[in-house]
Amino acid sequence: MAAIENLQLNAQGKLQHFLSIEGLDQSLLTEILDTAESFAEVSKQSVKKIPLLRGKTIVNLFFENSTRTRATFELAATRLSADILSMNIATSATSKGESLLDTIRNMEAMQVDMFVVRHSLSGAPHFIAQHVADHISVINAGDGQHEHPTQAMLDMFTIRQVKQQFAGLRVAIVGDILHSRVARSQIHALNILGAEEVRVIAPKTLLPTDVESLGVSVFNDLDNGLKNVDVIIMLRLQKERMNSALLPSESEYFKCFGLSDERLKIANSDAIVMHPGPINRGVEISSSVADGPQSVILQQVSNGIAVRMAVMSMAMRNNEGGE
Amino acid sequence: MAAIENLQLNAQGKLQHFLSIEGLDQSLLTEILDTAESFAEVSKQSVKKIPLLRGKTIVNLFFENSTRTRATFELAATRLSADILSMNIATSATSKGESLLDTIRNMEAMQVDMFVVRHSLSGAPHFIAQHVADHISVINAGDGQHEHPTQAMLDMFTIRQVKQQFAGLRVAIVGDILHSRVARSQIHALNILGAEEVRVIAPKTLLPTDVESLGVSVFNDLDNGLKNVDVIIMLRLQKERMNSALLPSESEYFKCFGLSDERLKIANSDAIVMHPGPINRGVEISSSVADGPQSVILQQVSNGIAVRMAVMSMAMRNNEGGE
Amino acid sequence: MAAIENLQLNAQGKLQHFLSIEGLDQSLLTEILDTAESFAEVSKQSVKKIPLLRGKTIVNLFFENSTRTRATFELAATRLSADILSMNIATSATSKGESLLDTIRNMEAMQVDMFVVRHSLSGAPHFIAQHVADHISVINAGDGQHEHPTQAMLDMFTIRQVKQQFAGLRVAIVGDILHSRVARSQIHALNILGAEEVRVIAPKTLLPTDVESLGVSVFNDLDNGLKNVDVIIMLRLQKERMNSALLPSESEYFKCFGLSDERLKIANSDAIVMHPGPINRGVEISSSVADGPQSVILQQVSNGIAVRMAVMSMAMRNNEGGE
Repeated sequence: MAAIENLQLNAQGKLQHFLSIEGLDQSLLTEILDTAESFAEVSKQSVKKIPLLRGKTIVNLFFENSTRTRATFELAATRLSADILSMNIATSATSKGESLLDTIRNMEAMQVDMFVVRHSLSGAPHFIAQHVADHISVINAGDGQHEHPTQAMLDMFTIRQVKQQFAGLRVAIVGDILHSRVARSQIHALNILGAEEVRVIAPKTLLPTDVESLGVSVFNDLDNGLKNVDVIIMLRLQKERMNSALLPSESEYFKCFGLSDERLKIANSDAIVMHPGPINRGVEISSSVADGPQSVILQQVSNGIAVRMAVMSMAMRNNEGGE
Repeated sequence: MAAIENLQLNAQGKLQHFLSIEGLDQSLLTEILDTAESFAEVSKQSVKKIPLLRGKTIVNLFFENSTRTRATFELAATRLSADILSMNIATSATSKGESLLDTIRNMEAMQVDMFVVRHSLSGAPHFIAQHVADHISVINAGDGQHEHPTQAMLDMFTIRQVKQQFAGLRVAIVGDILHSRVARSQIHALNILGAEEVRVIAPKTLLPTDVESLGVSVFNDLDNGLKNVDVIIMLRLQKERMNSALLPSESEYFKCFGLSDERLKIANSDAIVMHPGPINRGVEISSSVADGPQSVILQQVSNGIAVRMAVMSMAMRNNEGGE
Repeated sequence: MAAIENLQLNAQGKLQHFLSIEGLDQSLLTEILDTAESFAEVSKQSVKKIPLLRGKTIVNLFFENSTRTRATFELAATRLSADILSMNIATSATSKGESLLDTIRNMEAMQVDMFVVRHSLSGAPHFIAQHVADHISVINAGDGQHEHPTQAMLDMFTIRQVKQQFAGLRVAIVGDILHSRVARSQIHALNILGAEEVRVIAPKTLLPTDVESLGVSVFNDLDNGLKNVDVIIMLRLQKERMNSALLPSESEYFKCFGLSDERLKIANSDAIVMHPGPINRGVEISSSVADGPQSVILQQVSNGIAVRMAVMSMAMRNNEGGE
């Protein structure tokens, strides 16, 4: 998918838009992680603010509601001193029949510098990036069942923080792979960064048909899948799937694919447990594991701010409007 | 309407409230345009911010939803470094039965400096300006079918940008004049600024009965009306009018009053095409005209920020709380 | 309630959380009032802003809608230069089934410094303060029918502003004591600050059964209750009570417990009239009294900003993250 690769990078090969993990290379992902490391300290200072993006206008275009992701992007932008305009698109001009493209053209005319886009349709951020002026960057904050690249990068940041490197790591992603944009981005990122093995563990009904082609080994049994793994990533089970034909009851699901203390013992003794949140306690993960010593779930949340600061500042530096 | 004129100006004859174009004179409108020119550069700088209104509190009182207008006022205030408090009045204290006046008195007691008011009732911003304390300015962001003065001034700014002066210009305003606060403000502004001729072009059902008294020539036929014009302002057709007895179908409307490439050729060859947005493509204007070389529609949007910065800073300077 | 007292104070006995008036002592309440006095000037300056909380992140966690209280907290935080993140919890992650505690843990991981909490359940802010990390402060912005301590402190500030001291003052609180968190906080504050007498005046159906135990004298007759009082605090009558069995009609209520000009004459001639707002004109208070010379209702609103600035800055200074 060369077109997408080109779309994300500017003429100098630098990150201008952050749309998908797919199409980026190891050095760029590593640059994001290294940059995020330099920002991690900002949120721990007494004055949690640096003037890097002062006077820049960042527009949150959330076509789909997401409190947590919106909050982390807003905090990241605030701590970089940018100005933020939050557009609730459901109640906006599009309800007056204005097309997405007209909305974008109009915001563009207001001399904004960046769109952070969340959309229920896969590819919406790509579409916007294709049509936007050169001096504007687009960040994908989750599009349909396609990708959620900042979530994947905060996961990578957290893994590197604990495990130092990706070489030699066995990572298991457990749950609803089929509908998960997070899983898709994580699989790409882990493979690009050189993890030893990426496993997906799920019932057959929650796996895409072509899943092996993403570069994963497939397990339909949790106990087998957890053997020798260093990192366990539990996915959130969307409750709305539950009433469909895809899944048995919640307690049945937990029995087969939920991470309990006993199950956790199957993995390597220093394995870490991750989850993108929000957690369904007792459905995909037990409370004792989620709150236990091997869990790095809240560390992921903290790292989300630093990683988003990194991506925003890199993209802003590399668009034509940047200094 | 001397009362309104006095209401907008402070004791020194300077703009304190910006409520309507009607009642202001040419020198004041020109002062707004000149001030806006000095602000147009701010949004093009790398750091889009000047500290002019730092520490001032501007309250967005939007009783009627409007994404785009709210966004431009918010960006204008942000780029002047003001603090903004956005009040969604539909879900606020007025739903607890508090009167508009009590809401205003309360906000006033919080030492705010400016209200930007959007209301479905004509005259609501005047009412607020009449009752508000001396150190507070009121800006009309659109009231009922009365006026939308900042929209008219950004249109004037755009016309002057392209045509340099108003003398000698023939301007046609096309569409639903009857329900348009934008048209009303534009007609006043064009006449005050000395345009040669202001035409309104509309079916009889969409014209006010006393429309000539506003100082316009009336055309019920688009082809006749467009002859020799320098500026064409297309109005947005409110879809909700469509189902009423006032109008035929959308395609019928476009056939009679829509601006197509062929129609555009009737006007002067250097005529510019304007629209307040959002556009109904294929209803009042064809896509090829809206996106064509004579269209200045997106330029209008950009100018909206500069004009609102001008009006806000002038009004703030001239209220008693200003420096 | 020693547990609550300890919860509000840090190891050095300083205010870290502001959850209830109950459990605080006179010197601490006086410190709040004195600190507020120093902030009252900020909102009167041309630049209404001091850099005291620059780079701090304050999260508005409003589980219950309240335009006015949210606005005053937001303005207070803005004038202290803090960054504010407003979380509309009704439409947020909790609707995805996330528990309150998980929401808090997640915000905490984002390195925020303060939660301002409004909740329909009594005790919710206490619960959050019990579970939150040491470097975070919690401010109660109204919880169920329990307390609304910042409202009570702005009332105390207003009383002290006019009457100089609490010794010797007779204060009457009139209306729906039973359901009022404001009344509960006021009664505690007045007793702690040494008012001569705190009276509650209400029909029996709107009084808690144990009301005397709060340290008040009880009147069921307005005329008797108003004799010799220096301060009259009218409570807002929640319209939703009106249709229940607790109350007769609005006009009947006004006849018995509404404050009219005639009734006001019963009190001391220099008595002041207070109301937390929003006012039901003609229900619990006549317009002529609300807008009359003895009313300090709008002064209360102004003081609300200064008092909230005081509480926020004190709590922030005393949490472990403070300087």
